[in-house]
Amino acid sequence: MNTQSEPPTTAHTTIPGCCAPVFDVGLTDGEAAQLAEKLSLLAHPIRLRLLAILARNGGHVCVCDLEAALPVKQPTVSHHLRLLRDGGLIEGERRGQWIYYAVRREELAAVQAALAQFFARI
Amino acid sequence: MNTQSEPPTTAHTTIPGCCAPVFDVGLTDGEAAQLAEKLSLLAHPIRLRLLAILARNGGHVCVCDLEAALPVKQPTVSHHLRLLRDGGLIEGERRGQWIYYAVRREELAAVQAALAQFFARI
Repeated sequence: MNTQSEPPTTAHTTIPGCCAPVFDVGLTDGEAAQLAEKLSLLAHPIRLRLLAILARNGGHVCVCDLEAALPVKQPTVSHHLRLLRDGGLIEGERRGQWIYYAVRREELAAVQAALAQFFARI
Repeated sequence: MNTQSEPPTTAHTTIPGCCAPVFDVGLTDGEAAQLAEKLSLLAHPIRLRLLAILARNGGHVCVCDLEAALPVKQPTVSHHLRLLRDGGLIEGERRGQWIYYAVRREELAAVQAALAQFFARI
């Protein structure tokens, strides 16, 4: 988009200083879409708590302990675990009848870096 | 919730090492809810781009320029501006027929600090 072009209507020109071109859009469509996707994955209290529990308790944590630690029912925990796993932030490993989950540190660090970059640029 | 109690069923005890208590939940309900709300406000490409444009172009920017700079229609821009304003991240000021918007730096800094704290704790 050529942001230096005139606005599509002439009505704006009656307001002095209005519709000066915006030269610096800061973030491309693609960058914004990628960051929004990462933020959406984090933006739920249960998912934040799951990440915190997994990150702070080291190694793999049994899904049964995750269910016991959170104030929601098992299907809800499973739903959010699936979203986090599909989004690449955690990984699961079956051991007998239970699945054990762990955070993927490098992926969490990438989200943190993308956020830091956004705040550094604005 | 007493996370040190035994799990509600005895089936778990057949798996060695399963259902060890989770001692460290990392984030309270309230902390997770507050952070999730802030993340939800950021978690949309148009809102990220609006924040970037406002932050990088200094002072107040006319809504007409915001509409011209983004690949969506005016009602969509207005919708996201309203969400950002209701969430306290931007402020609007009417000048003649147009509204001019600016980021609220202290509120953005608070979101950044809350995110930094989350990542520091996990």
